[in-house]
Amino acid sequence: MILKYKKMKIIRFPEKDEWSKILERPVINFDSLSAIVGDILRDVKERGDDAVRDYTERFDNIRFDTFTVTDEEIALAGTQVNKDLEKALKMSLVNITHFHESQKTRFPVSQITPGVRCWQKSIPIEKVGLYIPGGTAPLISTLLMLGIPAKLAGCKEVIICTPPGRNGEIHPAILYAASLLDISRIFKIGGAQAIAAMAYGTETVPKVYKIFGPGNQYVTAAKLKVSIESTAIDLPAGPSELAIIADDSAVPDFVASDLLSQAEHGIDSQVILVSTSEKLLYNVGEEIEKQVEKLPRRKIASEALINSKFILVQDEELMVEMINDYAPEHLILAVSNYNAVAEKIVNAGSVFLGNYSPESAGDYASGTNHVLPTNGNAKAYSGINLDDFMKKISFQELTKYGLFNIGPSVKILAEAEDLWAHGNAVELRLKNGSSKLNKNESI
Amino acid sequence: MILKYKKMKIIRFPEKDEWSKILERPVINFDSLSAIVGDILRDVKERGDDAVRDYTERFDNIRFDTFTVTDEEIALAGTQVNKDLEKALKMSLVNITHFHESQKTRFPVSQITPGVRCWQKSIPIEKVGLYIPGGTAPLISTLLMLGIPAKLAGCKEVIICTPPGRNGEIHPAILYAASLLDISRIFKIGGAQAIAAMAYGTETVPKVYKIFGPGNQYVTAAKLKVSIESTAIDLPAGPSELAIIADDSAVPDFVASDLLSQAEHGIDSQVILVSTSEKLLYNVGEEIEKQVEKLPRRKIASEALINSKFILVQDEELMVEMINDYAPEHLILAVSNYNAVAEKIVNAGSVFLGNYSPESAGDYASGTNHVLPTNGNAKAYSGINLDDFMKKISFQELTKYGLFNIGPSVKILAEAEDLWAHGNAVELRLKNGSSKLNKNESI
Repeated sequence: MILKYKKMKIIRFPEKDEWSKILERPVINFDSLSAIVGDILRDVKERGDDAVRDYTERFDNIRFDTFTVTDEEIALAGTQVNKDLEKALKMSLVNITHFHESQKTRFPVSQITPGVRCWQKSIPIEKVGLYIPGGTAPLISTLLMLGIPAKLAGCKEVIICTPPGRNGEIHPAILYAASLLDISRIFKIGGAQAIAAMAYGTETVPKVYKIFGPGNQYVTAAKLKVSIESTAIDLPAGPSELAIIADDSAVPDFVASDLLSQAEHGIDSQVILVSTSEKLLYNVGEEIEKQVEKLPRRKIASEALINSKFILVQDEELMVEMINDYAPEHLILAVSNYNAVAEKIVNAGSVFLGNYSPESAGDYASGTNHVLPTNGNAKAYSGINLDDFMKKISFQELTKYGLFNIGPSVKILAEAEDLWAHGNAVELRLKNGSSKLNKNESI
Repeated sequence: MILKYKKMKIIRFPEKDEWSKILERPVINFDSLSAIVGDILRDVKERGDDAVRDYTERFDNIRFDTFTVTDEEIALAGTQVNKDLEKALKMSLVNITHFHESQKTRFPVSQITPGVRCWQKSIPIEKVGLYIPGGTAPLISTLLMLGIPAKLAGCKEVIICTPPGRNGEIHPAILYAASLLDISRIFKIGGAQAIAAMAYGTETVPKVYKIFGPGNQYVTAAKLKVSIESTAIDLPAGPSELAIIADDSAVPDFVASDLLSQAEHGIDSQVILVSTSEKLLYNVGEEIEKQVEKLPRRKIASEALINSKFILVQDEELMVEMINDYAPEHLILAVSNYNAVAEKIVNAGSVFLGNYSPESAGDYASGTNHVLPTNGNAKAYSGINLDDFMKKISFQELTKYGLFNIGPSVKILAEAEDLWAHGNAVELRLKNGSSKLNKNESI
């Protein structure tokens, strides 16, 4: 089924009050999955490995005694990856590492007032679990996007769960990529049972404090469920999205190729093209028609494009406003003054500037992370970065003089809140502690 | 009911496998609230202001036509706050501002490889809602802890919901503190209906992208529910906690006053004292008995102390290990070598160093934030900081030369993932784009 893109409807100059309707995303409702996912979670929590074995048999058609990937399997995988892929993986690894290293922060110690010093320290989350989806192709890049910052942050225990293929094995490229990152605890577990195993721990799988990674609806529903119990998660995940802002300087075949690279992800992919140029919109439609026919995944791409939107607006300001309203996961700025436009973008996951920055560059090797907020979540969430694998602890050190400085205010505020013991903790120290001077008294 | 703290049981040298039992927190189960909270959320989503009016009448015993705080009410509040409280609030404001300003980050632009530049930018979340609980006393300090970073971050729309008192008014200290922060959109709404109003928006209350603030079980359950839909939240909140590590250098009456200041928060407060000195544990117990009788909230504090734990361990290493295992919200280091011990703390919300750093200093005026991870969440979550009011967007700019550098790797990786259109987006640009050189080609 190939669409007639030339005849594709262009939405012309919509009024602002129509935007939310035009840019509406499909509603994802997890209520229907809640019961089945809840059962799986409970069962794995109670029965551990045995339950994992049962669900793996049911959903992945294979029964394991042990689902831990062995050192031999990892070593073997190293011999099965071809040289080109090895080289590409290593370049990607270097670039992603480079960019995520630049995200390291060091906070200064602040002297708030004489005798009162405060500071923050970023500390790696000790135990993290990475979920790498299976399916027809190995998501090697997702493993890099999660594994690299986990290792850079210094997480002590980094484990991977990924569903076994039909033969009960994990794709060698996944194992090889994991070995490049020195991640050796890999479990052949997929679906909600993997999320349960990492959230609660089993005899084999260690309990982790935070779970990362995309997945199908069951995985997402399970992550949401454990997130309101005791395990942190990275991001609420949804179908992938690309918006492009284009003017007459855009190259129609480039734009078409980008829209198609988004559309081939899945039939629920969201593709939006906003332009001030009707000619450009028309030409992109024509180019899509030419390019889509050559794609192996043309059926998926074509279906996704049915829901795509080509929107003509009056000026740049409206393009920017509409995009900030939509808050796309990926945003390409195919406009001549892309630097100026980039300055005005406030809601987006990852932004690609100019004609030579296709989304696929960021998906694999520019260095930025490709695990990004979808479904409008870019209004409040960041894509994955080094900070997601760390938490910050606050520290404060007061000398007696420092407490003398702020203590009276503490007492007044505490009493205004009806918390008298809080004031007492200050008063006692100021009264009774005179003989015990803090060694940093002079600060 | 005053406990005999002198007879309080000290847990002596517990084995490691007993720790999790000893340090167990009460399980908070939101399932029982799920139905009622779900109904309130749905109702407010559908009926807006009218539903809010109904729930306010039902839960707060007052029916409003309009629940927006007026400019007159705010102006009046300014005349009702006494000079001492005004001064204390202003000092606290200065200190918290100072510390949160130190949290500003600037990320460098990374040249990943020639022709490939990537950077991150922190951008304020446009619309945020702050929930300030009501109850017997005004939580002025919580308003400062949330409002200051919201304003510093540059959030455009900052609104407050707080439940009305018996007379239908908001405590003047709350309104005055809000006016100090230049926050003028304040709504007299509490409970799950406030969370619903902020998450979905009503005729009066604007929809926000992220909701902050502590609250009772209904508020927390509502926040968790909206967080798995479309609205971000700050932290999963639970009962407040304090752990103290103490050695013989600790001052028993200081330690007792800190434990009591935690215990007076509520009967579900968690209080843990770990020491290498049995004498210290005993003396603190004695001091608690003396101090508790003088407290206005002695009943609450006494009840909370029933669940407190006094634990004797062999050495410093075990104290640190136990505390990292417990991951307390607040941690006081009442030990002589507190700097060395602080270096080993990896799981805690906020840490107080030495004998003159009571928790109450951080609760009000040292500058650190007091909205912190409870319930062991410090293993994966940070306390509130400036970053929570911002999100990071990634940017990348490739020249044709840059794409030439990384493009082949992108293509190989994309094809390994069976995503051919992704490779095509690169190939087209390298093939067809030769006449269109990027203006930054020389990078």
